[in-house]
Amino acid sequence: MGTSRLPVDQDRMWNDVMALAAITDPDRPYTRRSFSQRFLEGRDWLRRRFEDAGLSVRLDQAANLIGRLEGTEAGAPPIMLGSHSDTVPSGGRFDGIAGVIVALEIVRAMKDAGYRSRHPIEVVDFLAEEPSEYGISCVGSRAMAGALDDKMLAYTNAAGEKLADAIRRVGGNPERLAEARRSDIAGFLELHIEQGLVLQNNKIDLGLVTAIVGITRIEVIYKGEADHAGATPMDYRHDASLAAAQLILFVNRAARELAEQGKGYFVATTGIIDIHPNASNVVPGQARLVFDIRAEDYALVADFKAALERESRAIAQRERVELARYAILSDTQPTACDAHLRDLLGRGAERHGFSAMTLASGAGHDAAFVAKIAPSAMLFIPCRDGKSHAPEEWTEPEQIAAGATAIFEAVRLLDGHNS
Amino acid sequence: MGTSRLPVDQDRMWNDVMALAAITDPDRPYTRRSFSQRFLEGRDWLRRRFEDAGLSVRLDQAANLIGRLEGTEAGAPPIMLGSHSDTVPSGGRFDGIAGVIVALEIVRAMKDAGYRSRHPIEVVDFLAEEPSEYGISCVGSRAMAGALDDKMLAYTNAAGEKLADAIRRVGGNPERLAEARRSDIAGFLELHIEQGLVLQNNKIDLGLVTAIVGITRIEVIYKGEADHAGATPMDYRHDASLAAAQLILFVNRAARELAEQGKGYFVATTGIIDIHPNASNVVPGQARLVFDIRAEDYALVADFKAALERESRAIAQRERVELARYAILSDTQPTACDAHLRDLLGRGAERHGFSAMTLASGAGHDAAFVAKIAPSAMLFIPCRDGKSHAPEEWTEPEQIAAGATAIFEAVRLLDGHNS
Repeated sequence: MGTSRLPVDQDRMWNDVMALAAITDPDRPYTRRSFSQRFLEGRDWLRRRFEDAGLSVRLDQAANLIGRLEGTEAGAPPIMLGSHSDTVPSGGRFDGIAGVIVALEIVRAMKDAGYRSRHPIEVVDFLAEEPSEYGISCVGSRAMAGALDDKMLAYTNAAGEKLADAIRRVGGNPERLAEARRSDIAGFLELHIEQGLVLQNNKIDLGLVTAIVGITRIEVIYKGEADHAGATPMDYRHDASLAAAQLILFVNRAARELAEQGKGYFVATTGIIDIHPNASNVVPGQARLVFDIRAEDYALVADFKAALERESRAIAQRERVELARYAILSDTQPTACDAHLRDLLGRGAERHGFSAMTLASGAGHDAAFVAKIAPSAMLFIPCRDGKSHAPEEWTEPEQIAAGATAIFEAVRLLDGHNS
Repeated sequence: MGTSRLPVDQDRMWNDVMALAAITDPDRPYTRRSFSQRFLEGRDWLRRRFEDAGLSVRLDQAANLIGRLEGTEAGAPPIMLGSHSDTVPSGGRFDGIAGVIVALEIVRAMKDAGYRSRHPIEVVDFLAEEPSEYGISCVGSRAMAGALDDKMLAYTNAAGEKLADAIRRVGGNPERLAEARRSDIAGFLELHIEQGLVLQNNKIDLGLVTAIVGITRIEVIYKGEADHAGATPMDYRHDASLAAAQLILFVNRAARELAEQGKGYFVATTGIIDIHPNASNVVPGQARLVFDIRAEDYALVADFKAALERESRAIAQRERVELARYAILSDTQPTACDAHLRDLLGRGAERHGFSAMTLASGAGHDAAFVAKIAPSAMLFIPCRDGKSHAPEEWTEPEQIAAGATAIFEAVRLLDGHNS
């Protein structure tokens, strides 16, 4: 940990994080689902904090909340900082939130330091970074990158509301979404908790993200026969759970092999397993699996996809069940972070004596979409035991302050470099 | 098929079966789950039909619905007929229902024939024969046999309601459950669809059940860590789904081996697989499995149980997850049917020219519990392609009438024999 006096106010940030986290569905902390009333409450609070810091605040056409501090040099492209304020159900207090509050703190710390930037600074709370009720994540940053298409806008939630209508409901304008697309950003920096164990296990203060993994999701449905568990001899069965169990084990085995090849980060998970009818006295007639596959190098994903499809079919044949669905739900490429911005973050950390290491992000982030339209980089801070997307998610005030300090210094360096 | 004029009214039975089946959760036919509002609607309808047939109707302390027709001989022990009216989720129209309606029809057919029995006849709809939300099946017949103990009464459903409270809610009296225990039954006969393929494949009208398998249910819960599916390297994981998948495959492999030993019927099934949190981007932190194990010879079950427990623990250790629960939910012995009653059913079938064969029941039935307190026997009728516990469950009106005829004749023989 650094020891020099920091340019950011650790307590002010901590109090803000706790205040925003307190705006939660009371029966399931910490929950502030995108598009919900609770989410809008959180945004009202954020808007006031942005305004208190002297930012002029607007919603863009994609309902991203943006606070802007003008720079001293007319026409200089803005430096953008931020993350997201929405959460998963029963999530944590820091995932997204810490990044938004740190972005806000940079502006306040600049004012405290009497530093006026030449570039405008924009602080952004992206709309709906977490998987939304409409089936996709990173809604706001997708739109900012021009990657939210009409097909996605027509996705519906369980109540039948279209994503386009939901965006309008929270203040966006889906008919004029193209205007949310940006091409003027000098650089984007996002602080986020690591959501993993690498920094903690290595006792390192800060993580300089080399790349953000792509995420591929594949759904498999096996259909067998829902026969009576007592009256159906073993030889007569078409048990979908046996095919599912074999594919789950295959995915894990194949992922381990790819992870050990030394070609970068690779993980694959069977996160969803739904059995039908799921009754103790019925042979499983259907099994639905959703696989989540992530890598720094898309070539590994391509190999894995081919092997998964082959194995899915082979298992179906062997177990005498039908492979009723094999669908690629989403398939995004890995994103490399900007090397220059990463270097500035490293120099910012070093200036205050914080240790740093490079690592890949196994989670998707808004920065991966912003990277399509501007140089972008991410800074990770440790989180206790790697826990995230859960109420026990935790990071220390000092760890947030370390990250904010590195970003503060990187912004100053960027502001100077681009003069 | 028999050709003589039958003593039962085929259309009347068929219309009753269809009318009761129509009382279903509309979005998932055919569903009338025990303890539900829909189940109580079905029972209101049944109660009226029982009363229309001249039966005096009561609920016993275990909430079994019992209609009674007095006999001509004071103090003669009752002959009991019946089955159950509850269903599995998305079940069929005949499993249980056909047996209740046939029991009712016997009373109506006796009246039509001008036959007054010396024994009282009791028509019973047992409470909750199918696996209930409280983790056990055959709730009512267990109670009638004195086999529903305090531990079972304390089982809870997902909402935390105790079975005892649920029994009270549907009209029973759990504090006075001992009064539901019977010791006065002269004989019990239950008609049921086979739920298997033996009768259809052999083109036989009726099945004379030799024995009812015992059913053992075992619940296993593996606890791992619900880590981020992107940010947690493969080597860091404690994935409960991997342990579950291995145990599912072990159960199937071990069951096949036992079934092939030639020591009688043996089946084992993983019917329930619940994953938590079951989200695509979270490593499964918990997996719950419920196994269903059935055999004619309990020695096979004992061997299987020992192997299952050993393997459950070995897998937990290997996959670095916790075996948080290993619980025997129920464990019943196989039951031989009463040879004399089986003989009467065979004579009843023969009298009307119906073909019959002996076979084992792979399904559990209320008759297995009633057999603890009275001579009991079961008669199977064919069901199309062995399908049961599913909306396509089917048996023909003529097949129900054949079974009802054999039972009608067996009741007359029993009524005469016990004079």
